[in-house]
Amino acid sequence: MSRNIKLTIEYDGTDFAGWQVQPNARTVQETVQRAISRITGEPEITLVGSGRTDAGVHARAQVASVKTDTTIPADDLVHAINTQLPEDVAVIDARDVPDDFHARYSATGKTYRYTIINRAVPSPLERNRACLVRRPLDVAAMRAAAGHIVGRHDFAAFESKSGDNSSVRTVTRLDVLADGDRIEMTVSADGFLYNMVRAIAGTLIEVGQGRRTPDSIPALIATRDRAQAGPTAPPQGLCLMEVEYR
Amino acid sequence: MSRNIKLTIEYDGTDFAGWQVQPNARTVQETVQRAISRITGEPEITLVGSGRTDAGVHARAQVASVKTDTTIPADDLVHAINTQLPEDVAVIDARDVPDDFHARYSATGKTYRYTIINRAVPSPLERNRACLVRRPLDVAAMRAAAGHIVGRHDFAAFESKSGDNSSVRTVTRLDVLADGDRIEMTVSADGFLYNMVRAIAGTLIEVGQGRRTPDSIPALIATRDRAQAGPTAPPQGLCLMEVEYR
Repeated sequence: MSRNIKLTIEYDGTDFAGWQVQPNARTVQETVQRAISRITGEPEITLVGSGRTDAGVHARAQVASVKTDTTIPADDLVHAINTQLPEDVAVIDARDVPDDFHARYSATGKTYRYTIINRAVPSPLERNRACLVRRPLDVAAMRAAAGHIVGRHDFAAFESKSGDNSSVRTVTRLDVLADGDRIEMTVSADGFLYNMVRAIAGTLIEVGQGRRTPDSIPALIATRDRAQAGPTAPPQGLCLMEVEYR
Repeated sequence: MSRNIKLTIEYDGTDFAGWQVQPNARTVQETVQRAISRITGEPEITLVGSGRTDAGVHARAQVASVKTDTTIPADDLVHAINTQLPEDVAVIDARDVPDDFHARYSATGKTYRYTIINRAVPSPLERNRACLVRRPLDVAAMRAAAGHIVGRHDFAAFESKSGDNSSVRTVTRLDVLADGDRIEMTVSADGFLYNMVRAIAGTLIEVGQGRRTPDSIPALIATRDRAQAGPTAPPQGLCLMEVEYR
């Protein structure tokens, strides 16, 4: 294949079974691959994502790379592919990149946002975009706990399925912002373990509920035991905001 | 009926055929009336809304009043009714009000927000919450035009179906705020004509596109002719934010 193209993709994860292709399920990867195939006429298109997102998780700017021989200019490709996509996913940018660019291996950092609606009654308008927490959360305590998560740590306590690889990551930012009944946690790192953001969110919610103290976080991290951290917060609150490359 | 209760209701209008009961259609009014009936056991519940909203239009805080003999305290009523409601509508507040309170006739003002996503590519995450305008809008021009709309005017040029009543209204606020590719128009008035906000939005979009000048607005208002104003902007960008009472 003569070209390597970097695509930026936005999707509403509500009706997708996540990013990755799987049998008998509607996935973002397969939906976009098929759209590209229809445009380029190449039957075997493989879209390499920066990483998987689970069912219900959203992306403002997922990044994927694809090798193709099409001669359609990158800007035109955006609009052409979008004509073949359903309403809940769109290509928002396309550009030619060097042959060695790989959406996953070339990524140097990612930013996710986890959104909570903190009020006694459900929010129909936010039901697919945020996690509802009915009792008031102590945002200052959550922020203090977040301060203990920032840094280079072994995050095994926040990894749902541990693999053979290192679970050491560097969290460069974990902001907790409150605006009315909305609480947004924005977290950046050089990489994330499986379900890491949702495990952090579930743990910070427990801190906000007074079930853990901010100062208990360093000892929690040191256990490297997923059972010691909070639950995996529900997927609809999570959104992949940005993938960074050098 | 011994009690008059003021309900504040949030809904995602995407899958509703609007507020008002109509045959063979899923409406917010009927959905909430049925939920209340199931809780109070009163078969003939009439929910009086502050006004109708069209299919696809959302509400953060629609207000409705209902007369009932139930002895359930107002706070408990919120949660009880919500157990009977689908995910896309919720009662967010309930309180006892004097017998002469009427959600429509007692209202002294309303605030709507109209949201535009201004970029070349569609936004899957905002597709049901905002209107997409692909070419760049001149927000400063829109803001200047908005200044001519604020005040007490005969808004017949912005009324889709004119009735026998006066079309004079007082717009107390029309803010146009831009944040990245999002443009929000927030408009408050002592009352709104049918489709008035969407006609204002459609007209301000034309100003932003350079198809009208801000200074042409006073003459447009003076025509009192709906055909002279811009098109009715699509419903999904519109959200009823607040209803005011004395």
